[in-house]
Amino acid sequence: MTGLQEALDGRWAHVRQEARKQLAGSHFVAVPGETIEQARERISRLITELPVDPGVAAGFPKEYGGGADPGGSVVAAEMLAQLDLSLMVKAGVQWGLFGGAVVALGNERQHAAYLPDIITARLMGCFAMTETGHGSDVQQLRTLCTYDPATETFDLHTPHEAARKDYIGNAAKDGRMAVVFAQLITGGKSYGVHAWLVPIRDEDGNPLPGVTIGDDGHKAGLLGVDNGRISFDHVTVPRDALLDRYGQVSSDGAYTSSIENDTRRFFTMLGTLVRGRVVVGGSSSSATKSALTIAVRYGETRRQFGAPGEQREIVVNDYLVHQRKLLVALAHTYALTFAQEELVIALHEVQTADGAVDEHRQRELESRAAGLKAVQTWHATHTIQVCREACGGAGYLAENRLPGLKADTDVFTTFEGDNTVLLQLVAKGLLTGYRDAFGSLDGWGRAAFVAEQVREMVLERTAARSLIQRLVDAVPGRDEEVALTDRGWHLRMFEDREKHQLDGVIRRLRRGAAQKRDRQFDIFNDVQDHVLSVAKAHVDRVVLEAFVAHATEPRLEKMCDLYALTVIEANKGWYLEHGRLTPARAKAVTGKVNDLLKQLRPEMRELVDAFAIPEEWLNAAILREEEGRQETMAAHDLSVR
Amino acid sequence: MTGLQEALDGRWAHVRQEARKQLAGSHFVAVPGETIEQARERISRLITELPVDPGVAAGFPKEYGGGADPGGSVVAAEMLAQLDLSLMVKAGVQWGLFGGAVVALGNERQHAAYLPDIITARLMGCFAMTETGHGSDVQQLRTLCTYDPATETFDLHTPHEAARKDYIGNAAKDGRMAVVFAQLITGGKSYGVHAWLVPIRDEDGNPLPGVTIGDDGHKAGLLGVDNGRISFDHVTVPRDALLDRYGQVSSDGAYTSSIENDTRRFFTMLGTLVRGRVVVGGSSSSATKSALTIAVRYGETRRQFGAPGEQREIVVNDYLVHQRKLLVALAHTYALTFAQEELVIALHEVQTADGAVDEHRQRELESRAAGLKAVQTWHATHTIQVCREACGGAGYLAENRLPGLKADTDVFTTFEGDNTVLLQLVAKGLLTGYRDAFGSLDGWGRAAFVAEQVREMVLERTAARSLIQRLVDAVPGRDEEVALTDRGWHLRMFEDREKHQLDGVIRRLRRGAAQKRDRQFDIFNDVQDHVLSVAKAHVDRVVLEAFVAHATEPRLEKMCDLYALTVIEANKGWYLEHGRLTPARAKAVTGKVNDLLKQLRPEMRELVDAFAIPEEWLNAAILREEEGRQETMAAHDLSVR
Repeated sequence: MTGLQEALDGRWAHVRQEARKQLAGSHFVAVPGETIEQARERISRLITELPVDPGVAAGFPKEYGGGADPGGSVVAAEMLAQLDLSLMVKAGVQWGLFGGAVVALGNERQHAAYLPDIITARLMGCFAMTETGHGSDVQQLRTLCTYDPATETFDLHTPHEAARKDYIGNAAKDGRMAVVFAQLITGGKSYGVHAWLVPIRDEDGNPLPGVTIGDDGHKAGLLGVDNGRISFDHVTVPRDALLDRYGQVSSDGAYTSSIENDTRRFFTMLGTLVRGRVVVGGSSSSATKSALTIAVRYGETRRQFGAPGEQREIVVNDYLVHQRKLLVALAHTYALTFAQEELVIALHEVQTADGAVDEHRQRELESRAAGLKAVQTWHATHTIQVCREACGGAGYLAENRLPGLKADTDVFTTFEGDNTVLLQLVAKGLLTGYRDAFGSLDGWGRAAFVAEQVREMVLERTAARSLIQRLVDAVPGRDEEVALTDRGWHLRMFEDREKHQLDGVIRRLRRGAAQKRDRQFDIFNDVQDHVLSVAKAHVDRVVLEAFVAHATEPRLEKMCDLYALTVIEANKGWYLEHGRLTPARAKAVTGKVNDLLKQLRPEMRELVDAFAIPEEWLNAAILREEEGRQETMAAHDLSVR
Repeated sequence: MTGLQEALDGRWAHVRQEARKQLAGSHFVAVPGETIEQARERISRLITELPVDPGVAAGFPKEYGGGADPGGSVVAAEMLAQLDLSLMVKAGVQWGLFGGAVVALGNERQHAAYLPDIITARLMGCFAMTETGHGSDVQQLRTLCTYDPATETFDLHTPHEAARKDYIGNAAKDGRMAVVFAQLITGGKSYGVHAWLVPIRDEDGNPLPGVTIGDDGHKAGLLGVDNGRISFDHVTVPRDALLDRYGQVSSDGAYTSSIENDTRRFFTMLGTLVRGRVVVGGSSSSATKSALTIAVRYGETRRQFGAPGEQREIVVNDYLVHQRKLLVALAHTYALTFAQEELVIALHEVQTADGAVDEHRQRELESRAAGLKAVQTWHATHTIQVCREACGGAGYLAENRLPGLKADTDVFTTFEGDNTVLLQLVAKGLLTGYRDAFGSLDGWGRAAFVAEQVREMVLERTAARSLIQRLVDAVPGRDEEVALTDRGWHLRMFEDREKHQLDGVIRRLRRGAAQKRDRQFDIFNDVQDHVLSVAKAHVDRVVLEAFVAHATEPRLEKMCDLYALTVIEANKGWYLEHGRLTPARAKAVTGKVNDLLKQLRPEMRELVDAFAIPEEWLNAAILREEEGRQETMAAHDLSVR
């Protein structure tokens, strides 16, 4: 194991190594060009063959055969994503979303009754939250669940077509129960969204009375996952089917909860389900790594044009623009890997902590999960596309894996939270930090200054705090004098962009609030692009801090330079606009990036090999054929010259 | 017909209208979720049912039943692309590439013998240029075709696996002949790449002796096109199978050609085939328009979050960030439509001109075709992805068309020329303009200045020349005083970026040549990113000039403002770096863009309706369902409040 691999494998290296061993054997590997029926059949079968320990059971409580290892469960999912994304998503639905909701929202009786069968996949289930008419605004779901004290049952009902559950994994074919999210109504009053464990199919797989199940049919990708639609026509649900950890209904219909405020309660419930987003972010990076491995290795053998007068063989990886695509994407992938590692550690610590949940840490975790999910999934969409193009026509053939990686991961940018909405959430978290210090938005209008002190409080460092502070403090005063690879300077540039943009948004919101007091939508909408920039700047900083904390050897240092400088380069418009870069230094940044690419060029192959994806998992015909073919061609060319 | 539609439909409006009428009827429309066998079967059938006039025959000579209307043939293909991209590509292979090569490279006897059957699709054929080992460097193809005066035949041979023809449309299933590109060897000497018309299958569809045909199998998209691989094992080809317009071999093996230089002859032959790139660029924009129509219309009905305190209904199109995605993409699509129109006119005029080809115009046409193909196909890939995400989960379902549009167009960024390679071609064209004035690259080392005069010659205006000159001349001296919507200022900003970057590249190439005289690869590779920036700047200008020429009414003026200002905004780093924007003005640009979005928001629906895509061609379930559903939901919400 190389030092690079050790760094990338991180704290759960043992889970990764175990998966590489346990899931060896090609029958787990993605199959290109399947029909939807073939894919569903194969994935339904494989899902029951997955190793339970430390795999799919990692996230469950010890008393039901689980590993009580939330971090390990995320990493196990990331490994599945390198085999087959349908398999990962199907597993994520079954054990992450469905099983996870029962664990997080259910009581002990419910745990005992269902978890053993959920873990072994004897009981397949759905997570029925999203509705056709409402994706992101889950607090406003339209499905109703009304308690009737006379019968001591709930009435679960879909009032109109926009309220039907949609895009639900496991619904079209395999799910026998569903965790259904709906508005809880009792005594004529609504208490907000809660969840019930509801049977939807009988033993023979037929929908139960009152339950209508539709099929979402063919999708862009993830053909092995049976997404569907579920409607309820006044379905009777027993009182004890309510997953009632956060809200209980007594037999006479009285509602009780440890959390008074409906909104707070709802978001507390949602907060317990944060793992799904962490898994999606990490899994999309797994796919990115597969794609980069394929493209970089192909680029080591593929030639494009003859290079007259050159002694050496020029391959496509030798081209600056090819490096600009693949090596830069690789540096960002490294950065995101370390940020994901820090996030998984944070998740693990929050979810294994004794005693009450630390609200501040929980909120911080949710914000980081949202931000990194958005950034990792967009990075995956972008990078897999770049890899496809880097492989030319070969990249378009299913046998070379890239089409599948692309089609399967595409949906990640909008599921488990639309990326744009998630970034707004991140920004709102930052704004809330301000508000907690200054009071409400109205209050901001009176506060004439923004205290450095407050800013420090909001922009908390997220990794290796003391190291980072030391690096930042060591930067001399004038930027022009600082080396372009000075880590403290990078950190300061990232922080600066975030702080300044946050200040700007707050100023504009205050101004807007003063002018358009009654038009809340417009106040926020006018600055929505600015709000998203703040969120991106924040995530960039979180990612850089994680990279800095893990850049423990020379190649990682260089990759960290490349990450930092390409982010600065991509935002040079902002830096120049705000006097943080002089024109001369902005040009020097570009020169330094090209210089780093030259230095890292010989390492490209090792940098992807460090992802340690088993050869059979890569499953791309061009990797099997290309080396032999190029040798033949080179020999031929020599003979005809 | 609205004024917008009239402007977009352009000079070949009659061809578009005819297609909308002739291709009505849902059996031409793309079918989501087909297996590869179903798709191939359907497309093979439909290809024989396409209207010949003014459709598939438009590009052929009148004497064989064609329309002698090269421009019309491009527009007819663009229309097919709105129905089904597999159908468009299959038609493009048959009539554009295969038939087009016979027209352009063949002699009259060959025209008479084959064109009638090609036009009616009785004779299906392939265009066998690309090889597994060489995509872009077609001058270095490895297939050999050697003349033997003893038998008066050629020997066509694939010397090794990397030389097999690959990704060839019509090869896996339907093609009976192929235009095969190979190195012509006679009398022991190679004369470069030529083309032969070679039978590959017998009447029963079996490969002929010596011909090995493979199947490229499942692809990311375009399942209806049967791409395959062809190898030749010393296949005997009669002497008169050579498409010999540009080079002839006499029975005794003597080679003659009207073009002495092998390279020049080869690029002249390639140049006659320019239409393929024009079709791919235009067709990718057709797909972009379908995607935008779907996303904008869905965004008019889809709600995301409740907007407390608002009287009006807030739909996703009301969000600034949604407008930043869709409206900006829409403005760029308009811009590219007009640029494509100008390109098609240029193509039409060159290809219908009497007498000898004007070399300068031909070169200009090839360069513009390359640049617009690259920019349009990348814009399609980007925009269709944005539209998919803008539709959330619904965008991922095959029934809503976007997955098909995305998967089918993906390959366009690398076929008919890899986009990166094409942009290099554009840049080399600009550099050649310099060289023609200054002499060779070596000569540049001596030339100490860059004359304005030369620059003017290189940076020729591409549309509405006198109007544009007037606008540029009317801009007052100091930028800060000019309105942000001043068209002359936009034009000057675009020109400036192109000129200055071109100067910069030349300066760096000269310096490189002086320092590394013997290392040609490094000299160019060191500035490759800069070279691509020049090409992008050039294409941006060409596109703006076309938009200016066509912006004949107020909404088009605003869309042109939006196009120009978002390009300036995207490049503000460069403008600030080079003192072309002050920080204050750079910020004002962003403000103005947001302002334009607000002004154009109410027009979104009309702006996509002007593409005039027949409702049945759009073929997206969400458009059929969404309106009714939203009405039900709104009514319900009112009743529960």
